[in-house]
Order: sequence, then C-alpha cells, then structure tokens
Amino acid sequence: MAGSRGSAPGLTWDCLAREGAARAGMLRTAHGDVPTPSFMPVGTAGTVKAMTADAVRATGAGIVLANTYHLMLRPGAERIAELGGLHRFMDWPGPILTDSGGFQVMSLSRLRTLDADGVTFRSHLDGSAHRLTPERSTEIQHALDATITMCFDECTRLPATPDIVAAAMRLSMRWAARSRAAFIGRPGYGQFGIVQGGTDPELRAESVADLVAIGFEGYAIGGLAVGEGQALMFATLDATAPLLPAERPRYLMGVGTPDDLLGAVARGIDLFDCVMPTRAGRTARAFTATGTLNLRNARHASDPAPLAADCDCPACSRHSRAYLHHLFRAEEMLGPMLLTWHNLAYYQSLMRGIRAAIVEGRLAEHATALRAAWSP
Amino acid sequence: MAGSRGSAPGLTWDCLAREGAARAGMLRTAHGDVPTPSFMPVGTAGTVKAMTADAVRATGAGIVLANTYHLMLRPGAERIAELGGLHRFMDWPGPILTDSGGFQVMSLSRLRTLDADGVTFRSHLDGSAHRLTPERSTEIQHALDATITMCFDECTRLPATPDIVAAAMRLSMRWAARSRAAFIGRPGYGQFGIVQGGTDPELRAESVADLVAIGFEGYAIGGLAVGEGQALMFATLDATAPLLPAERPRYLMGVGTPDDLLGAVARGIDLFDCVMPTRAGRTARAFTATGTLNLRNARHASDPAPLAADCDCPACSRHSRAYLHHLFRAEEMLGPMLLTWHNLAYYQSLMRGIRAAIVEGRLAEHATALRAAWSP
Repeated sequence: MAGSRGSAPGLTWDCLAREGAARAGMLRTAHGDVPTPSFMPVGTAGTVKAMTADAVRATGAGIVLANTYHLMLRPGAERIAELGGLHRFMDWPGPILTDSGGFQVMSLSRLRTLDADGVTFRSHLDGSAHRLTPERSTEIQHALDATITMCFDECTRLPATPDIVAAAMRLSMRWAARSRAAFIGRPGYGQFGIVQGGTDPELRAESVADLVAIGFEGYAIGGLAVGEGQALMFATLDATAPLLPAERPRYLMGVGTPDDLLGAVARGIDLFDCVMPTRAGRTARAFTATGTLNLRNARHASDPAPLAADCDCPACSRHSRAYLHHLFRAEEMLGPMLLTWHNLAYYQSLMRGIRAAIVEGRLAEHATALRAAWSP
Repeated sequence: MAGSRGSAPGLTWDCLAREGAARAGMLRTAHGDVPTPSFMPVGTAGTVKAMTADAVRATGAGIVLANTYHLMLRPGAERIAELGGLHRFMDWPGPILTDSGGFQVMSLSRLRTLDADGVTFRSHLDGSAHRLTPERSTEIQHALDATITMCFDECTRLPATPDIVAAAMRLSMRWAARSRAAFIGRPGYGQFGIVQGGTDPELRAESVADLVAIGFEGYAIGGLAVGEGQALMFATLDATAPLLPAERPRYLMGVGTPDDLLGAVARGIDLFDCVMPTRAGRTARAFTATGTLNLRNARHASDPAPLAADCDCPACSRHSRAYLHHLFRAEEMLGPMLLTWHNLAYYQSLMRGIRAAIVEGRLAEHATALRAAWSP
C-alpha cells in the first residue's frame, strides 16, 4: 500500500482485460466504481458547464473533474466543506477528481511568483492575493472531499529550454513528496502523482522513478497536450506508460480529441479529462462517429436528419439538425445545452465502445474502424 | 360553432367548477387536454429559454406559447412547416399557442409603417423588409401548426389619446374579421379573438361585441400589463370578462406576477403567458411561496437551505441556496437553467393550487393565505 498519513486502504484499480498495452479495468472508490478507460467531464467551478448533474449522469459519466484553483477563489474550499463537501454542493455523489491548481496558477492567475516552497499569485477574478503550496493544495482538496487528490506541481510555460523543463520536473518531484506527506488517506480515496519532464524520455523516466518511490494510488502524466502535437505526445506516452506500476490507474491530463483518446488507451492510459467536448458544444461543434461538424453552418438550416442517428441524447433523439442550427443562430441557451449533452454522450459512448473492444480483444480492429469513419 | 373556413369542430373548453367569477376547467385540443387556469411558459424562438422540452414538461406545463414575429424572421414559418411543424421542431407534442406578431412588430421591429391593410416593417435582426397582414399572420400560424392561433391586431404604443386607442381597437376588430376569414379550422384547433380598447370600459365592451359577433373558439384580453398598474388592469378585467361568452376560454395576454395571476383568475381568466418567470430566472430572481428573492445577494453565499423546501425541482431538491448563489456569481449557465426551472415549477404549482381551491370552493381563503405568505 502506498504510504500516506493514516493507514486507510486507498482506492484501487482492478485490471479486467488487456490487449497489447491497452487495459480495461474497474476503478473502485469510496464514491462508487468506474469502468476504465474512462473520460471525466470537466466541472471547473463545481458545474459541468451547461449541464445539470442529472444530465451528466444520463450521458453515462462515472467520474467528473473539478478545479482547485477556481473553487479556492470562489466560493472557497472551506465554504464548500461547511456545506458538506463538493459532492453534495454540485449534486454529484459519484467520484470526483480535483486537480491541484498548479496548471491554472500558471495559465490564469496574475503576478505569480514562484519560490521553492510554492506560488504566490493574484486572482484573475478580483486581484486578491493567494498562495498555493503542496500542503495547501492538498488541504484544499481534502476540504473539497475530492475522491482523487492530485499532487501540486509546477507547470512550465512552453516553449522552455531543456534546463528549465528538468528543473521544473525536479521541483515538482520535491513537491510531490510534500503533497504525499500532507495527504490524509481515507478508505476508497486516493492521491495521484504527476509525471513531468516534457517530451524528454530520460526526464520522464526519472520522474516516474521518483513518484513510484514515494508511492501513490495512481499516476498521472502531465505536461502533454500543450502544443507538442499528437506524434510527440504518443512518443512520450510510449516512453513513459510502460514504466508505471501495472496495478495502478493511469491518467493522461487534459487530453483530448477522440483520436487522442483512442491512441492513448492503446498506450495504456485509463483516465482522461478535457474541456474539448463541453467547450466545443458551446460553440456549435459536434463530435460524431463520422467526424466533427459545425451546426452553425448554413447547410444544416433545413436538414430534418438527427445530428447522429445512433445517439440517444436529447439533441439527437428529439430534434433535427435544423433545430440545433436554429438555436445557435438565434443564440438560444438551449443550443449549447443540447450540444454539450450530445458531445459528452458521444465521448462516453466512445469510451464504452473502446472498453468493450478491449474486453473482446478487438481494439486494433475497432480503432481502425473508428478512424476510418471519422475521416470519410 | 364559431364560423371559420372549413367546418371542423374547434377546440373546446369545459367548465368543471366555479367560485364567484373564477373558473376551473379543461381545455380540450388536438394536442391534448390542459387543465385551467393555466400558465403558458413563453418559448419565443421555439425554445423556452434555458430549458429542454423535457424540463418544461417536468414542471407540469401543459401548453406553451411561441412568437410568430420571431419565428417568421428566423428560421421562417415555411421552413418549420417543411420540418413537420413547430411541435416536432421544438419537441413539444402538446398544445402550442402562437401570438400573431402584432405586439412584437410594434415593440421590436424597425421602420414600421401601418396602413389599413397591415404593417410593413424591417427585421430587428438584419433589417430585411417584411409585411404582416391579418391574412399573412394567420397563414404563418397555420404553417407553424399552432394549436391556438391569435388574431392579428394593432398594438398601440402607450401613452395614447382616447381617439388613438379607439381607432386602434376598431382597426383591430376589422382585422379580427379578416383573421377569422383566413383561419383554416381543424379538429381540436382554434383561433382566439383579442379584446382591445385600453382601459376604457365602453371601448372594451364594443370590442367584445364585435368579436363575439365574429365568433371564436376563445377570447383574449390584450393591451393590458403595459404599465397601467394592477388596479387599473383589474378594473378593466372587472368590466370586460363578464361580457365574454361563459363557455369559451379566456386568455389574459402577457400577465404576470403571481399576484396578478391570482387576481385575474378571480376575475374569470383561464389562460396566461408571461416572460416573467423565465426572464427572472436568468437574472437570479426566484419566485417562492414566501415571496421573491435574489440569489446573487451575499446573504445566500453560505446558506445550506434549499431555495424552497416544498419544491421538487432540481434547484430545490438537489442544491443549496449557497450553490445557486455560487453559480450566478461565477456566471455559470447552470444558474439560469436551474432558476428558470424553479420559477416555472413555482408558477405551475401556483396554478395547480389555484385550480384545486376553485374546485373545492375555497379560492378566497386560498388567495388570502397566498398573499399573506408572499408579504411576510
């Protein structure tokens, strides 16, 4: 068992089937079980944008992500704790993974100052001063009652020199040890370490070794999907994933397109999160089995066909493409609502299909068929 | 049977109970029955803003309103007809009432020119030129497949001199006859005449007599809730409603607050529509049995209580006031979604309670209790 304050047995992951490096499994947590590979919808501020919690459940999602940075600034982690925790707050009794705030501090906050102990920054909302350290980030995630707590890491802005990438990775590893020390284990909860090191296989290997020496309930691969391109991302996964403990869940942070997910699953990844399906839904872009399309396009204006004939979401089962087009042209809120629902339903359906293919030993054929259909 | 092109029996209304002037009844239409008094959520552009059709149904709504002016401009009435009509377009198989466009032409369009035959105007969306006449408005509503078609009337801008009000009413009555002549009756469909005449009882009486002589499946009272105040509105209802045929449904257009509805039901009104619950919901204002409140107010920031303990909508049954406050502060779409849902659920619950009180002969006591609770 991974070491942490307290001796509670953490969340576990059972492997149910393998095909090559791909794994189908079951994540078992205090807040329920989640079949993997699994996609986590992003609920940044305690809400998956444009969706009720019931609608998120209806898409088949089993676990959602929320953002420490946003919630610590508004409404505040201690307030959420007083209100009974994030599960009750957002009406999501299932598992919740919270990121550590490290990425958002670098990408959103103002006037940030990094030191060896942590980061001081000003809120992008009101300019108020805040500080995050490994200890404070871990404490906030505990207050939120996160099922899965992420280590606080330093996210370098790209492009960066190899020296900067290496230094950031090593600082993140020291912070990982401090995050682990601050983590209060509870039955069915867990903490994930985050592998850093850019696209350098040696740095990645060093990072994995450091994290495994500390010991976590799961391992995330961070610092990818930041502009390096799919080929370099996959190459980094090829170099990194095999080094991770086989019996622990693996999470690729911030990824990605359906094709990214398919390629990453084939390389041994179990968990994903990305704003892509929700953000695309708000801007009229739909993911389907035959590729993406933009509902604002005039060619949909009088199309009575459903967005996707094989989808049982309300956008597809109740309405025409013409109606969805009309909603976006009229700037009606129902457009983003329905298309977010559809995109999340598509992502969940994609993951269900991938899981079934792994279990049945036909992931390679399934991937070929999916890719052929995406690019007609 | 009211005269119209074709001999199909139109929609009917059965009175089930009376208390004073108040009536409980059942509107029977081609698209289903609706208990009255009833509140119609407003689905201007073919969507009740921030709500899926399923959510509208879940609030208990039995009939919705849509706007001819908006739909003729975008996506176009003939396009909706080609797509199978408005019911299918917006996933609302139940009854739909469409207004005639007269009010919106006056309030929204640009460069409008009134003549005895109709109105020429430019779209507020793109400046394109359009024309509405009684015949065209009726034809558009037929194309939309409206369960209830409204007569095309001239809506005077207020304040207006008595002469202007009288002239507008008389023009509207000539247009009502032309609207009726253009109406193609179908079983279970109907057309409502609109009583005009401002707050002048004599003009209102003249308008009623003209409309009854033409003969409609129902009668609306228009030109109220335009700033005259509740006392004058109620006085006008007192003078007008008793003149209307007892066996036909009566619809007070564009009204109103819960207190307006209560007072108008007591004066013999059966149907209502208003943007108030939906618009208020988008701006954080909630209607409850104990009055209105604004969820943006800081006093809700850490309140674990539900918005309304006796409401089974998702906003109340799944979340705290603190969460709703957070959603509005964070400008999350779910805030308007949940509060619109709640307000519509409250309006439907209000109408259910009023109907039950009429049936049980205790509307007067019920009204006293409701008003006492609204103003603590």
